[in-house]
Amino acid sequence: MTGSYYLSARSAFAEFTMNDIIARKKSGQKLSRQEIETFVRGVTEGTIPDYQISALLMAICWRGMDITERSYLTSAMAASGRRLDFTAVKGTKVDKHSTGGVGDKISLMLAPWLAAAGKKVPMISGRGLGFTGGTLDKLAAIPGYHFETDPARLVALLKNVGCFIIGQSADIAPADKKIYALRDVTATVDEISLITASILSKKLAEDLDELVMDVKCGSGAFMQSLPEARALAKSIADTARAAGVRTTCLITAMDFPLGLYTGNTIETYEAFEFCRPSGIYLDTANKLYGKKAPLNREELLVQPLVEITVELAAAMLDHQARSDKKARVKAIKTLMALWQSGALESKMEEWVAAQKGDLSGLRKKAKEILAAFADPKSADVHTYRTPVKGYLAHADSRAIGNLMVELGAGRKKSEDSIDDRVSLEMLKYRGEPCSKGDALVRIYKPGISSSDRRMIDTVLKAALKVSATKPKAARNILAKM
Amino acid sequence: MTGSYYLSARSAFAEFTMNDIIARKKSGQKLSRQEIETFVRGVTEGTIPDYQISALLMAICWRGMDITERSYLTSAMAASGRRLDFTAVKGTKVDKHSTGGVGDKISLMLAPWLAAAGKKVPMISGRGLGFTGGTLDKLAAIPGYHFETDPARLVALLKNVGCFIIGQSADIAPADKKIYALRDVTATVDEISLITASILSKKLAEDLDELVMDVKCGSGAFMQSLPEARALAKSIADTARAAGVRTTCLITAMDFPLGLYTGNTIETYEAFEFCRPSGIYLDTANKLYGKKAPLNREELLVQPLVEITVELAAAMLDHQARSDKKARVKAIKTLMALWQSGALESKMEEWVAAQKGDLSGLRKKAKEILAAFADPKSADVHTYRTPVKGYLAHADSRAIGNLMVELGAGRKKSEDSIDDRVSLEMLKYRGEPCSKGDALVRIYKPGISSSDRRMIDTVLKAALKVSATKPKAARNILAKM
Repeated sequence: MTGSYYLSARSAFAEFTMNDIIARKKSGQKLSRQEIETFVRGVTEGTIPDYQISALLMAICWRGMDITERSYLTSAMAASGRRLDFTAVKGTKVDKHSTGGVGDKISLMLAPWLAAAGKKVPMISGRGLGFTGGTLDKLAAIPGYHFETDPARLVALLKNVGCFIIGQSADIAPADKKIYALRDVTATVDEISLITASILSKKLAEDLDELVMDVKCGSGAFMQSLPEARALAKSIADTARAAGVRTTCLITAMDFPLGLYTGNTIETYEAFEFCRPSGIYLDTANKLYGKKAPLNREELLVQPLVEITVELAAAMLDHQARSDKKARVKAIKTLMALWQSGALESKMEEWVAAQKGDLSGLRKKAKEILAAFADPKSADVHTYRTPVKGYLAHADSRAIGNLMVELGAGRKKSEDSIDDRVSLEMLKYRGEPCSKGDALVRIYKPGISSSDRRMIDTVLKAALKVSATKPKAARNILAKM
Repeated sequence: MTGSYYLSARSAFAEFTMNDIIARKKSGQKLSRQEIETFVRGVTEGTIPDYQISALLMAICWRGMDITERSYLTSAMAASGRRLDFTAVKGTKVDKHSTGGVGDKISLMLAPWLAAAGKKVPMISGRGLGFTGGTLDKLAAIPGYHFETDPARLVALLKNVGCFIIGQSADIAPADKKIYALRDVTATVDEISLITASILSKKLAEDLDELVMDVKCGSGAFMQSLPEARALAKSIADTARAAGVRTTCLITAMDFPLGLYTGNTIETYEAFEFCRPSGIYLDTANKLYGKKAPLNREELLVQPLVEITVELAAAMLDHQARSDKKARVKAIKTLMALWQSGALESKMEEWVAAQKGDLSGLRKKAKEILAAFADPKSADVHTYRTPVKGYLAHADSRAIGNLMVELGAGRKKSEDSIDDRVSLEMLKYRGEPCSKGDALVRIYKPGISSSDRRMIDTVLKAALKVSATKPKAARNILAKM
């Protein structure tokens, strides 16, 4: 009685209410929906000072949040800004989200593929920051590509084309932006409740029926171990389902850069090459999912990209594919038919044109990079060769991603500008035997300097492990949930 | 190698260094002296944003700090501002610090008493905030009392009088002020490393040889249980010793308000009455430490105040008194002689006069309060009577302290003004039998309203427990370390 008497005398202050919320989480209690909504509203309106937000974030790192609290936090953050409204669009709205990797251009294939299969794909992507690339930066490499924001145009794209890929506008989940900015400078980025709410709040604002999560695991991912990745995948699946979205999570390997190329222009080019109804990507898929023939070395190089893309597409096409073998096989069959018939490529061209992108302009830029790679005398290319013989056993893709950032392909800070021409080509697949002096990686950078070359050699020497014994086979799909 | 390569590319940013320090503490690592000094320097200079400070404070609540880290933090905070310099003053410099209680006027007796005994007492006290009173507010009730700040005058006071009591100037331990302000609004006030560093940083800036800590324990203290109080006392003792200050910690009972009176004017008056070479305080001490006679009811009312004051004085007089029985007995004998001879009262008068205080002015103010208490018809006094018969068993002194704040005797916020006339008198001692309708407490407030009276009755009904059975005897000195 007397205790609460004293409290009530002070509780008029908003600061004191927030102090109380911090104290409750600090002591390990669960926060109520009302407390979480009070917090998120205060963050959005700017009435809670940063020092109280960061204190609560650290208390959440300490005590965690259960799935109920995570779903409240996610929903409150999703409700903090504009929500897209696609009720006027018939069909199942599905998106894929990746936790971020190196060489990950998979969204660019999935959006038109699922649209070709009759789904509606309202895809909102992010810019790259740190060692992971961002889909938005890859699309920005297409001359003229327009990041549409007009709601009516988005509805029209979804109705008529079946997909779009746009950037996150400032008015979607503003609470997440504010909280993320503070997490970034207070060592509170890695807490699973906060990661879950940050990812899902933006997805919930997209008015989705279904979500497929690609939780990447390995040296080139935020989650470096399988237990960590499993915990995050489970958190995302449980929280998204608690918020009413049908969700599949795939945990996929992210040790080697995905595909042949890393770099914004060249990755986008690779994504569109992938969509063609012929070529090594389709050949590889046919061998993996059709006649089950052994892969040649070029096919082994692209196998992880092909396998992960097809599995994610199957999960997006049929929610049952996660657990039902027949449904998965049927989904893959449908997808392969769309690929082989040219429907995937046509849809890709239709989508890019609908967002005003100039594919031939992109191809022209990419051809210059490929020409430099093909020219042994190019002054803009540095080739890294293994100093020892053995088998290419491991890649530290985080180090490779950071190297690309240093060379100008990505950003250290959000205000940094990038050079979309800087490119990396993987020349050996995981497990491939190599002799001393064999080229493992080529890097293209216009005006590459001798200090760039020294940095590349230093980083790649540590990042690419050539071992005396052949590494054991590794899976690309580590878990589905 | 590649990891640190990436870090070094960003470490130019101060924000990033701090992010790293937060991350290390968050993961449970010990911070180095350099990291702690970087943090405190950044706080002092204002180069570390509040949100990073509060994130680190919460991480410290989570992971704690060991004694070495606490001593680094304490020393860095002590070094963040001006340090007093008493090298010109011969003799042992000793101070007492209390963690704060209700009715705690003990500093006012200790300073002149130890000065009379030949020690040098450079005492820096704080203002009251919340339910505990502050020595500074009590001294401010003395007309003319001057809170000296001039360094040369302070040296002269210590040399010539042997003691002073002043306020903490803004330039002493500014890092503590900044950190405390953030702790207060981020639910990080109760962490023991931070409490220890906050208390000791100000004491270390006083250029002390010895420190006696009064760690209060009970309903009217910050530490409400003995294990909590023990942990704090041990932390303070170990940390202060690690920083080179001889230290004794006493854990003392703080359930009932100390002494007969609570309220700034009346407590200061009581402290000076205590110093007289006659009266119930000295009579009580004589019975406790001399002839061992039973106490009468007036003496039982003041027993806790007398006992705690004498024990603290003994610890200040002889550092050995903590563990050496003979040293304690000898110290008490010396102190009693100074009290009985009038040397204590003379020194008290000398000290107050040296700081320009008008004792007769204070006595005049106090007499008005005492006259109101003595007048059964006073319109400014409210008497609380027990609604049941039994034994006065327990007091919630935190609630009583908060009640005094509500009545204007203390502050809720640091900018609040206070009324130094508001007074509380305890009429029964712990364990005293009472009949239904007996007066337990009298409160004086000029212009007391009927809503004040209702609030007093409501609060005291809950705060003062009258039980059917006589409570077990309780000790006033709970531990020494």
